[in-house]
Amino acid sequence: MCPYLRENITALEGYIPGEQPRNGAAIKLNTNENPYPPSPRVRKALRKATNRNLRLYPEPLSDSLRALAASAYGVAPENVLAGNGSDELLSILVRCFVGPGDRVAYPVPTYTLYDTLIAIQQGEKVTLDYLPDFSLPEMLYAQQSAVTFVCNPNSPSGTLVGRAELERLARSVAGILVVDEAYIDFAEGEGVSALPLIRDFANLVVLRSFSKSFSLAGLRIGLAFAAEEIIAGMMKVKDSYNLNRLSLVAACAALQDRAWMARNVARIQQSRKQLTKALTKMGFQVYPSQANFVMARRAGQNLKWLYEALRRRGILVRYFDALGLQDSFRISVGTPREVSVLLREIRAIEKEAKDGADKSHGAGPHRP
Amino acid sequence: MCPYLRENITALEGYIPGEQPRNGAAIKLNTNENPYPPSPRVRKALRKATNRNLRLYPEPLSDSLRALAASAYGVAPENVLAGNGSDELLSILVRCFVGPGDRVAYPVPTYTLYDTLIAIQQGEKVTLDYLPDFSLPEMLYAQQSAVTFVCNPNSPSGTLVGRAELERLARSVAGILVVDEAYIDFAEGEGVSALPLIRDFANLVVLRSFSKSFSLAGLRIGLAFAAEEIIAGMMKVKDSYNLNRLSLVAACAALQDRAWMARNVARIQQSRKQLTKALTKMGFQVYPSQANFVMARRAGQNLKWLYEALRRRGILVRYFDALGLQDSFRISVGTPREVSVLLREIRAIEKEAKDGADKSHGAGPHRP
Repeated sequence: MCPYLRENITALEGYIPGEQPRNGAAIKLNTNENPYPPSPRVRKALRKATNRNLRLYPEPLSDSLRALAASAYGVAPENVLAGNGSDELLSILVRCFVGPGDRVAYPVPTYTLYDTLIAIQQGEKVTLDYLPDFSLPEMLYAQQSAVTFVCNPNSPSGTLVGRAELERLARSVAGILVVDEAYIDFAEGEGVSALPLIRDFANLVVLRSFSKSFSLAGLRIGLAFAAEEIIAGMMKVKDSYNLNRLSLVAACAALQDRAWMARNVARIQQSRKQLTKALTKMGFQVYPSQANFVMARRAGQNLKWLYEALRRRGILVRYFDALGLQDSFRISVGTPREVSVLLREIRAIEKEAKDGADKSHGAGPHRP
Repeated sequence: MCPYLRENITALEGYIPGEQPRNGAAIKLNTNENPYPPSPRVRKALRKATNRNLRLYPEPLSDSLRALAASAYGVAPENVLAGNGSDELLSILVRCFVGPGDRVAYPVPTYTLYDTLIAIQQGEKVTLDYLPDFSLPEMLYAQQSAVTFVCNPNSPSGTLVGRAELERLARSVAGILVVDEAYIDFAEGEGVSALPLIRDFANLVVLRSFSKSFSLAGLRIGLAFAAEEIIAGMMKVKDSYNLNRLSLVAACAALQDRAWMARNVARIQQSRKQLTKALTKMGFQVYPSQANFVMARRAGQNLKWLYEALRRRGILVRYFDALGLQDSFRISVGTPREVSVLLREIRAIEKEAKDGADKSHGAGPHRP
């Protein structure tokens, strides 16, 4: 143990990201990456930018990206901040708005990085359980918090809270409301994003990510949208050159080919339907997902054995070994082939377990 | 003004990076970039990595880079942390070791980002003036601080503190000593880096950057070297995927072609000598630089007019409009051609100013 660390850092467990196998052989449905590659325009722009100018610092404020994003999303450049992934933007937000002892409220289960960031900043987390159908707990509206987080669509549930609820929340919270829309492009229907509300609410921040819908998890690009005064505050806290030259170029090219993104989103929505239907048929409770993953539950059964059996067969899904989630998986929506291999292997594993159980006239060896 | 921001953030001015012109036409000697491009191996590796795998997250801990860096610098991978530029590593360090009210000491003038990071964290900065020859002030050894920073070689002075002093400092400070070696590759002689001392001091952190000697400012890559316990603490605070795939690949390729870096360093050392000699001849006091820039002073004269005149001629140098630095420039060492254009233009500007002054029988219009 390092005696020089602050106590809250020593006590911190740290956020544990999903497994990233280095050989790439596995069917990887554990960290919500897009199964389809980024736009060819992105790759073309990257190849062009791989030149001697890599010796020069990037634009400090990512102004070219801010201008494009402003135009794409119908806001002003002053309403946009680019980050090294939306993780960096979350970290900047907590440092801007949360001092030691300040309250930060959010419904759970959700993205556990919020816990980590608050602990680093010595804030006080106030977590409230989602209702069983993953609608917002009424108490959330009444919290006196410096920051309120809503991940929407939520992870790991995939469920979506409507814009009217978010509008009511923005109006009723004491501090900042952060709507983390990393997965919003996968939601169906019009008017699901809270982004247009930044005009009306000086306390609203909407986060977007290029990791999922734009297939650019490898390049770490996120955007924050908010009133100019919030963005100006966040700029003081961000590192001077937080986005590198190549990520900047890739983000601009991706934004200029949103048709490519939309086509992949449509394919994923289609696979999501099939996956949801098949898992439901296999006895899982599947929450209505508006994201590029589904949460599949078998209420009361610990699914760790099944997660591990899939892993041995080269299929990674996300298993959260935490109270209330041990009976669930979060499964990223892969290609149709990946989805069908996953379903086939779950069936095979369960058949083996059942056969073993029948043979031993009792519980299967893996079934806890 | 945003009423939701923490007071310390509202009060913060924010670090102002040097100008990054977008057209690239200027002779740019203001932000210490390397005038030579990165290794062809870096560009080759980048082109190869610009593929469909950009859809996947990068290695969370940059393990491939840590392994290479460990081998290159003679430490264990557990002693290495990779960052999105050494700026991110500085920010992580402050969040790990500095709580509200904790003291952070460093000699000034130096990298002003330290001020910003401490203010964000509500730490208390304790700045001590360097001695006139830029050796360490004796009082620095006696500070009871959570963190002590030494930028070595220092910016803007370019001067170097010896390893013996740093060893003494590591032994005498109460908390962590951070030696920021962004420019160390440009120093001459053996045994100038504090890096080997991390074996002996559990409170020492040495930072390196790929922005200067490796010509990769555009890709944001830094490394921290320290005892395993410090690195483990820093890992909890860093973002999960802080280094993107392409920067990771570039860093690995650069480390595998250190001969390319060393060749460019030798060219810059040669130009540095010529620049120092010429500026001295022109009446500037030039501090003995071990970095890829020189600090040129005309004691007591405000040089803003000259900075602005150079800027009008398309030459950017760094002028710090701060007390004690207004009689100085920081000039990055460019190519021999850039150095000679700079010198020619300074001569031309000064001649014009002198002629103007002679004509008006008084002080030149620009000379304040």
